[in-house]
Amino acid sequence: MSRSVDDHATHVRGLLSAALRPRREIVALVDALDRVTAGAVLSPVDLPLFRNSQMDGFAVAASDLSAVPVRLPVVGEVAARPGRPAALRAGTAVRIMTGAVVPEGADAVVPVEDTISERDSVTVNRTRAAGEYVRDRGSDVHAGEQLLPAGLRLASRHLAVLAAAGIGEIEVRSRVRVAVVTTGAELISPGRPAAMGEVYDANGIALEAAVRACGAEVGFVARNQDDDTESLRASMVAAARNADLVITSGGISMGDYEVVRELLQPLGGWVGSVAMQPGGPQATGEFDGVPVVSFPGNPVSTQISFEVFVAPLLREAAGLPAAMLRRLALTSDLRSVPGKRQFLRGRSLAGERVEIVSGPGSHLVAGLAASDVLIDVPAETTELKEGDLVETMTL
Amino acid sequence: MSRSVDDHATHVRGLLSAALRPRREIVALVDALDRVTAGAVLSPVDLPLFRNSQMDGFAVAASDLSAVPVRLPVVGEVAARPGRPAALRAGTAVRIMTGAVVPEGADAVVPVEDTISERDSVTVNRTRAAGEYVRDRGSDVHAGEQLLPAGLRLASRHLAVLAAAGIGEIEVRSRVRVAVVTTGAELISPGRPAAMGEVYDANGIALEAAVRACGAEVGFVARNQDDDTESLRASMVAAARNADLVITSGGISMGDYEVVRELLQPLGGWVGSVAMQPGGPQATGEFDGVPVVSFPGNPVSTQISFEVFVAPLLREAAGLPAAMLRRLALTSDLRSVPGKRQFLRGRSLAGERVEIVSGPGSHLVAGLAASDVLIDVPAETTELKEGDLVETMTL
Repeated sequence: MSRSVDDHATHVRGLLSAALRPRREIVALVDALDRVTAGAVLSPVDLPLFRNSQMDGFAVAASDLSAVPVRLPVVGEVAARPGRPAALRAGTAVRIMTGAVVPEGADAVVPVEDTISERDSVTVNRTRAAGEYVRDRGSDVHAGEQLLPAGLRLASRHLAVLAAAGIGEIEVRSRVRVAVVTTGAELISPGRPAAMGEVYDANGIALEAAVRACGAEVGFVARNQDDDTESLRASMVAAARNADLVITSGGISMGDYEVVRELLQPLGGWVGSVAMQPGGPQATGEFDGVPVVSFPGNPVSTQISFEVFVAPLLREAAGLPAAMLRRLALTSDLRSVPGKRQFLRGRSLAGERVEIVSGPGSHLVAGLAASDVLIDVPAETTELKEGDLVETMTL
Repeated sequence: MSRSVDDHATHVRGLLSAALRPRREIVALVDALDRVTAGAVLSPVDLPLFRNSQMDGFAVAASDLSAVPVRLPVVGEVAARPGRPAALRAGTAVRIMTGAVVPEGADAVVPVEDTISERDSVTVNRTRAAGEYVRDRGSDVHAGEQLLPAGLRLASRHLAVLAAAGIGEIEVRSRVRVAVVTTGAELISPGRPAAMGEVYDANGIALEAAVRACGAEVGFVARNQDDDTESLRASMVAAARNADLVITSGGISMGDYEVVRELLQPLGGWVGSVAMQPGGPQATGEFDGVPVVSFPGNPVSTQISFEVFVAPLLREAAGLPAAMLRRLALTSDLRSVPGKRQFLRGRSLAGERVEIVSGPGSHLVAGLAASDVLIDVPAETTELKEGDLVETMTL
């Protein structure tokens, strides 16, 4: 009896819940892009840090502008530089640059374009109310106020406000570390011609990249070609030591030489069948206390299994949005095996229709590469017509 | 006379066109996630590489199944391992595993569930047509066919098909290298309390992160606090040597100590005003043959200037989608300065409405951090009412 996709997804979620529980680490701001805040961040300071000028112009007491034009002696200059300027005496003005400290005694800035400068004085042609063109200390945020919420994925503007508040490092959620172990005696690396029966390993690179694209990191990678349980056990020891969860591909179907099955079953792992195509054979277990999620070896099965069972959990842990779901209209009829949920490869057209790309075969890696959505055909559906709406998951 | 935003955007696009022209480099697949293909990639091989079994079962000649049940002697076994199996004699069967080479002489696979195995023979209960459960060589893609188009941003499924075809490295567009030079005598790094007049540098980290978020790389970073043209010149020499384009912040307004202006103008640079808020002062130029785009020093001005003038070009060069534009309904009235295009900070609500976050001031870094869209108010608009639709750009 096969499990439903939803039941297996629930099972995998439960299995991984401890591994995906947020842990924290501190990183420098320069390394914090796209990381997720571990907690809310409060401002240690007022922003702006001090009362400063919004314009290049003249700092004055607004009360000195009650009758304009008025000529005020210019008694100094304040640039945007460190240091506390002398207090302004009533009836005088100082030249001031944008961002510079507004002196005590001044409460307005007159933009340079509203003035006529003479050698040692300035004539102001417009009245200004107290506070005009002055940015008050704390007018953006007060010390103790929240700068950023918990669980926020950090973009450049978030790093900017942290830097502005003098925060040089930040506590973020640790990335989930994933180990990838591919199995199969037929697997080889690119770089030489394949002899008869040899297959280039696509699952290793696909899983590594998919893990990273979900905001997790790859803690360990191995390919096991030995068709030998003890050899696989050695790889798994290293994988478990270097990761929060282990993903394997291959070795779980009903044939012989199914090393992952042979390793996991005696340890209490579940090896069975999920009512889906591709990706029917699935397995889960624990190895050295680390959860293991095992996919079948066909590259399309592995990739779709990852998208369906693991990617949503990793994205959630990394604060990334879930894959976009859209209902699109089929451009052709389709038939589907009863009792199995199908994930067909599709290409979306103008965000309204979807064309089926390649056949349903789990070996069609080029077909998957040419698709941009998975078409999710429910297990009970056996036939759909051109124009029927189907649920799609954006890749 | 101010330039319009569109005119300045066109000017910046022209200035950067040579710097953003795609260059190519070769990277290993493991480093190719999110890179953009420099050209179309053709398959060097047929995929599948060889005719193989879709199921665990028995390879047979379909013609031997004309009358079922039929009992066939099992004369061997083929696993998914390197090597060419012996040809199948008519009237016999071999056990075969998923993915294993289908022997010459066999043209169908009978799934194990449709058979009854005896010691040395198998009874097949269903007829099978030639080709059933057999994956033909080249049935996914033929040698010479296109695997991936040019200009494609590589996701895990694209890397999978490259690996499957034995391709270990790929030619991608080089990332644009950007130098970031911030200026301002008042700037300090986080990590110690700011004295009066000192300001933590937010622009450096914001620009670095924004450049990376646009798929470019940061080739050089410097902060120049000397208010001195010769000192800035030294930074710019290093910046130009290590980047395809240089972005500066600060030093271009009409006040004194405007070092970027003082450096660029004698070299034929343009230093002027764009009819926008924030971000009015803008400058461009060339330094040692490398284009320079200069933003004002207020952190919000710098960040919004980057989003408006540079980010779209970098995203395009990196094969990233453009920022999403949406028309949203205002949750409150707003007034806008005539003659200036305003980019107000907003928070989108349920993808339908937009709330204005913080004031228009270019120092409100916390306000920008709390926003998720920029509200684009045209230069000629002076007033909008609650419920009016406004164009927004997603951050």
